[in-house]
Amino acid sequence: MKKVINAPGRVVEEMLRGMELAHPGLLRLIPEQNVIVRADAPIRNKVALISGGGSGHEPTHGGYVGPGMLDAACAGAVFTSPTPEQMLEASKAVDGGAGVFYVIKNYTGDVLNFEMAGELAEAEEIQTDYVVVNDDVAVEDSTFTSGRRGIAGTVFVHKICGAAADDGKDLAGIKELAERVNANVRSMGMSLTSCVPPESGEPIFEIGDDEMEIGMGIHGEPGIERKNIEPADQIVDDLLQKILGDNVDFTSSGDVAVMVNGLGGTPLMELYIAYACVADILKREGVNIYKMPYVGEYMTSLEMAGFSITLLKLDEEMKGYLEAPCDVAAGRPF
Amino acid sequence: MKKVINAPGRVVEEMLRGMELAHPGLLRLIPEQNVIVRADAPIRNKVALISGGGSGHEPTHGGYVGPGMLDAACAGAVFTSPTPEQMLEASKAVDGGAGVFYVIKNYTGDVLNFEMAGELAEAEEIQTDYVVVNDDVAVEDSTFTSGRRGIAGTVFVHKICGAAADDGKDLAGIKELAERVNANVRSMGMSLTSCVPPESGEPIFEIGDDEMEIGMGIHGEPGIERKNIEPADQIVDDLLQKILGDNVDFTSSGDVAVMVNGLGGTPLMELYIAYACVADILKREGVNIYKMPYVGEYMTSLEMAGFSITLLKLDEEMKGYLEAPCDVAAGRPF
Repeated sequence: MKKVINAPGRVVEEMLRGMELAHPGLLRLIPEQNVIVRADAPIRNKVALISGGGSGHEPTHGGYVGPGMLDAACAGAVFTSPTPEQMLEASKAVDGGAGVFYVIKNYTGDVLNFEMAGELAEAEEIQTDYVVVNDDVAVEDSTFTSGRRGIAGTVFVHKICGAAADDGKDLAGIKELAERVNANVRSMGMSLTSCVPPESGEPIFEIGDDEMEIGMGIHGEPGIERKNIEPADQIVDDLLQKILGDNVDFTSSGDVAVMVNGLGGTPLMELYIAYACVADILKREGVNIYKMPYVGEYMTSLEMAGFSITLLKLDEEMKGYLEAPCDVAAGRPF
Repeated sequence: MKKVINAPGRVVEEMLRGMELAHPGLLRLIPEQNVIVRADAPIRNKVALISGGGSGHEPTHGGYVGPGMLDAACAGAVFTSPTPEQMLEASKAVDGGAGVFYVIKNYTGDVLNFEMAGELAEAEEIQTDYVVVNDDVAVEDSTFTSGRRGIAGTVFVHKICGAAADDGKDLAGIKELAERVNANVRSMGMSLTSCVPPESGEPIFEIGDDEMEIGMGIHGEPGIERKNIEPADQIVDDLLQKILGDNVDFTSSGDVAVMVNGLGGTPLMELYIAYACVADILKREGVNIYKMPYVGEYMTSLEMAGFSITLLKLDEEMKGYLEAPCDVAAGRPF
């Protein structure tokens, strides 16, 4: 296993410490809890947004904590759900009296634990609600999931609902908006290699030197097809046909936000090549790309090579919130 | 070779097209030249900054084109210098009458070609000057270089001189500032894997499953030592001792900008783990880190796993320009 780490069992703690050290004034770490919190939390009378999940998807989720996005992120062990206790501590740290909203990616452990955390928080007089994001069109039911998995489309929920919370929307309004974003966002990915979780030190799956996996999950869950590598434009066409063939009408009038998300090991060169294919195919299909697409690493799988495509059909309210300023670690290259 | 590409011989053209499509209003491509230019160039009476080099280091250089940084970037083939003709076309496209300044990483081909481009531009009445950045402390003389190589510290030259040009500094002033930044910036890297250039489809070097290379170049040039992988804190200590032992006094009073730069295949998790080590060691050594460090992928080597560390000793003028706003593709995650 080739990694820049000190000890496989301490990667999450050391990473979070590095994040806190790298972003003084923006982030603080709740000691012993592996929870990253906005340095200025709680914000009085603002709905607080919390997300979280297994580590290994950076900058998801800690990289999205800050003004205009999340109030807290709960980091589980690599590819392992955080605990209800972590989520409760996060809730207590960020609740400003207007309630706490959980953005949950659809994995069974995440959903169960956030639901339990919500009950514990309610017992402490903190109002809670949540959305379960399930944007991945690849498969129904998977290794860790009942229904569809939640992947990179979740970042749009963070961005749009984070701006809405800043704008004063109440808990019921955030819930409605989050459900609306989730109803209009669809994603699908592909991989060329497995990633290697630090604790096991072994790849999650074996894959041939000339093979790719279409529709795999961000924890290496099986996809829908294993086949020989194809040219980028063919791969992109496959992913987009499955996304466009789902039940959101991206081709009618209106604008669509587009994300080409690298999974960790794929260089930016290839993401831009893939984006050129995406732009060509969406033009052919009559899909109107809204302003600037999102090309980069938003939700990774450690060092997995591959990428995902996400489309979000926008309404006017979503556009405003998508463009609102935010200040988060993942958005601070300079 | 596992890559999301259409054809090995077209990766640069297709990547640049993807960049242009992804950033309408910010970037435009000069057809047939593989030159990315600020959409609003030329800017009258502003010194124009141009950089460039072989492709495969994205977001370097095209990702740094835009207000507050570069006016143009010349993309060579992968790991191959751009031509004087590209550089001349870039110069003609962005000169606003105040001259053109070339930021050159120290590789023999890049230096020779930019020098020739400068002569060609002068013949067309465009004033030019340049800096050769040589921040890599690892080795003197290398496969493609006489003297020290230029690596990730170059991004600080782009940022600081780009802001200075926006601020109205003239060509002589930009030259002096660029030389001052170069005199105060030092870097060194390490790798766990080779990268695979698309045209050859083969790794540049072989490396064992338990080995790492200390001080290699961003084109896979040999470093100073091949040894068994060590814990992150030991690796960071090795790199920092070499940087701190060089001829810039980072430990005296004053502030130091710090960059932990991923080479493409190393996940953000590991970069933050490395940054925690950097912060601890610099504290122990009495180096004062200025505000927010730069942790991410700034100058990559395709999908190489590994990272580099850069330190820049700042003066007050550099601080102001480092913090000035900029709007470039690499700085636009949201």
